[in-house]
Order: sequence, then C-alpha cells, then structure tokens
Amino acid sequence: MTQNIYDDPDFFAAYGKLDRSVEGLEGAPEWPVLRAMLPDLAGRAVCDLGCGYGWFCRWARREGGAARVTGIDVSERMLARAREMTSGEDGAITYTRADLETVALPEGAFDLVYSSLAFHYLAGLDRLLAAAHRSLVPGGSLVFSVEHPIYTAPAEPGWTADAAGRPTWPVNRYLDEGPRTTDWLAPGVVKRHRTAATYLNLLLGLGFALTRVEEWGPTEAQVAARPDWATERERPPFLLVAARRP
Amino acid sequence: MTQNIYDDPDFFAAYGKLDRSVEGLEGAPEWPVLRAMLPDLAGRAVCDLGCGYGWFCRWARREGGAARVTGIDVSERMLARAREMTSGEDGAITYTRADLETVALPEGAFDLVYSSLAFHYLAGLDRLLAAAHRSLVPGGSLVFSVEHPIYTAPAEPGWTADAAGRPTWPVNRYLDEGPRTTDWLAPGVVKRHRTAATYLNLLLGLGFALTRVEEWGPTEAQVAARPDWATERERPPFLLVAARRP
Repeated sequence: MTQNIYDDPDFFAAYGKLDRSVEGLEGAPEWPVLRAMLPDLAGRAVCDLGCGYGWFCRWARREGGAARVTGIDVSERMLARAREMTSGEDGAITYTRADLETVALPEGAFDLVYSSLAFHYLAGLDRLLAAAHRSLVPGGSLVFSVEHPIYTAPAEPGWTADAAGRPTWPVNRYLDEGPRTTDWLAPGVVKRHRTAATYLNLLLGLGFALTRVEEWGPTEAQVAARPDWATERERPPFLLVAARRP
Repeated sequence: MTQNIYDDPDFFAAYGKLDRSVEGLEGAPEWPVLRAMLPDLAGRAVCDLGCGYGWFCRWARREGGAARVTGIDVSERMLARAREMTSGEDGAITYTRADLETVALPEGAFDLVYSSLAFHYLAGLDRLLAAAHRSLVPGGSLVFSVEHPIYTAPAEPGWTADAAGRPTWPVNRYLDEGPRTTDWLAPGVVKRHRTAATYLNLLLGLGFALTRVEEWGPTEAQVAARPDWATERERPPFLLVAARRP
C-alpha cells in the first residue's frame, strides 16, 4: 500500500497551512489552467481521485453544476474535514475512503475523472488508470495534475544557481523511475518519479486519446503578484494532462 | 530564414565526423526506438524533412520497402552527398533543396512524414507541421525526433555534479521558449527551445492523434558498450513523437 502521509499528524498540520489548503482552488496557482482543461460539467457525474479536503468536489457541484460528485481519498483526516465542509448538498457529493492502489470504480459511471497532485504518490498507476478508463462513459474525460517529472527526478532536489547566478534546478536520475524520498512538510515523504513519456504512454496504451498537455508555470501576472513564484518559471512544478475515452 | 548552419564549412566538417554521419542510422543510438515507432513502409510514400545525408531515405527504400521517398533539406552540401550515395534506385528517391520554414508539400501525398533532429532548428514550426498534416493521407503517420526540451532549455547548458558527485544537468529557462545559442560543433549555433507541451499541443491543435511519446536515453546494454553514454540516462537528450492523421 502507498504511504498515507496525509494521516501523519505533522504532515497533516503542515499541509493544512498551505495556501491551497486554506484558500482551496483559488490558492492553487495552476487551477485556472487546469479548470480550462475540464469539460462542461453541468448535469454530469464526476469522480475526484485523491479529493483531500473536497475543494474540487464542492466546486464541481456548486460552480460546475455537476449532478453527482464522488470524492475518494485514503486519508480519514482529510475526508472528515471534507464531509464537515459539505453540507446542504442533499447527497449530491459522496466521500469514500479507499486506497487508490486498489480502489474499485463503477464501470461507465462518470463523465469526468479528475485528480489533482495525487498520482505521484502511487507506486502502481497502471491499475488505477485502467479502472479510471473503464469508469468513464464513452466520450468522458480524464483530467489530472502531477508533480512534473523534472521536479520529481533529482536524487537531491533543490535550487542551485548557474555561473551567471540564475536560479537553476539540477536534474539527474530522470530516466530512473521509482521512489524518491524527500523532506517535504514532514521527513521521509515518498513520491514516485515517472517520466512524462510514461504518463502519456500509459494513457495511450489504455486507449485514451490525449487532448491537452500543460507544463504549468506561473504567468507573468502571477509572478508580479507573487514574486517568490518567479523561480517556478525556470522549471515547471506541475504536469497537467487531459485525455478522452473515445 | 532559419540559420543554415550545415552549410558552414567548419560545422559541416565537424558534423561529418559524428558517429551518426559516418555510420548512418546504426551510429544513432536512438534509432532502434525511433524505428519501432514507424508504420510498415512497404509500398508506401515517405517524406523526410531535414534528410541530411539521406541515411533514412535509403533505409526507407531498401530496408523498409517504400515505393517512393522524398528527402528535403536546406543544406546543398548535405544533399550533394546524399545524391552521391544514392545510386541504382531508379528514381525512387528524390532529393529537394528547400527551407523547412517555407517549403510547400504536396497534399495527401505521403503515408509517413519523418524528421530526425531537425525541428529544433526552426524558428517557426506551426506552418511546417500544418503542411505535414495536409501532406499525409488519412491514417498516415508523422514520426519525429528533436533535442529534448530539458536539453535545450538551460541558459548555460553543461554538466555539473550534485553534492554526492552525481552528474547533473542544470535546468533553467524551461518555460522561456525561443532561441538558444550554443557552441556545438561550431560557434554560434542557434537552436530553438520549445517545451514538450508545446510540441504535443501543436500536433493536437492540428488534429493529429498522438500515438507514442518517448524520452530517449540509452539502454543498459548500450551504456555497457559505450560507458561515455551513461550520463545520458541522467536526463534524456532526445524527445521522440509519433502521431497519426485520423
């Protein structure tokens, strides 16, 4: 089973202080690009793999007009918070605790399967993506984000500078896929490095048609508002992918 | 017009000594992977954009069994060599000099449009890819390689080492697309950095269906035979893409 770092009290406490935890989607700078990759959700059925606090589930219901939203997460702590924050939805949003490595998804049930920054924690992704494919109606969409492979690759991640002093992200081990242990919010967080090609070929092998790929970095306007994000344009922190089940 | 560095005498002389120039496809370590991305060529019409010495044109005809092969290159020096090396083909291989930025391609004429390590020299790629799309028959394939964006991105490309001494490729300017001037074989060679997402979204925007993406690095067997290639597994030197006109 994948490490469930979100139920580690220290990690959970630190994670809860991130902009994206406090402010939700508006605190996630990649959200405008990810949102633009989504299909029209009005009256549709949506599943969020790794739903966390349920920010996206609520958005899909309230802003997107989805008819039914299923949020799945391995973290009991996060689901408890998600349920607490979802009231008055008359059962349109359902939260389920499951390990994404082994979860069963209903077949032909969803118009959109969504996942934000969850897949790079999973040791095995083939099985989940195959289940996601089967869970979509024909014409349904898969839209997800992961930490970018350039970000996850290095043996010793961290900023350095080139000879001219420009912020530089040292890359190595890019083609050496597998676990990477980092001290992000808590010591010993295990993420799984996969190449961009691996993500894309997994989808193509399952019969998905790719529709959009984004290597996200902040816009100039975002950097003007948040100068500390400038380095994120030196190498993309996130990979965003949209695909369709034909 | 794109810089035609191949007709620079110093560059041409140095390029002519590379393994891939002397040995042809067998001297290009990514060739086995690129070859596996090709459709069956028997009896088909093939176009090679940036054909250089014509190694692929000859392979497509002699090994692939292609009926007609068109090689296009901007370098008169390279085409002269290509024509010299192609004899006894009874006109099945045609070489044409043209700038890939402005070349006109016949419509619906090819079953495969191929290009090896040429597109990253072009300032504008949209127009050429659109022409390539129109030049394919329905069901036809586009297969190409370019220098990998991780390789082309840095302001000051070159190997460094991380704290543990591991070879490391410093990445910056990844999201800052445009020219990169390097001293590769000759001073002042201008290549164009594009993100992987830009290459893929250009294809998707034209109506191509992506079929395979490879971030090429040498296999363990290749590294055993050529230990100097080991660092190429730290970051991929080439991006290989296969797409189909539906």
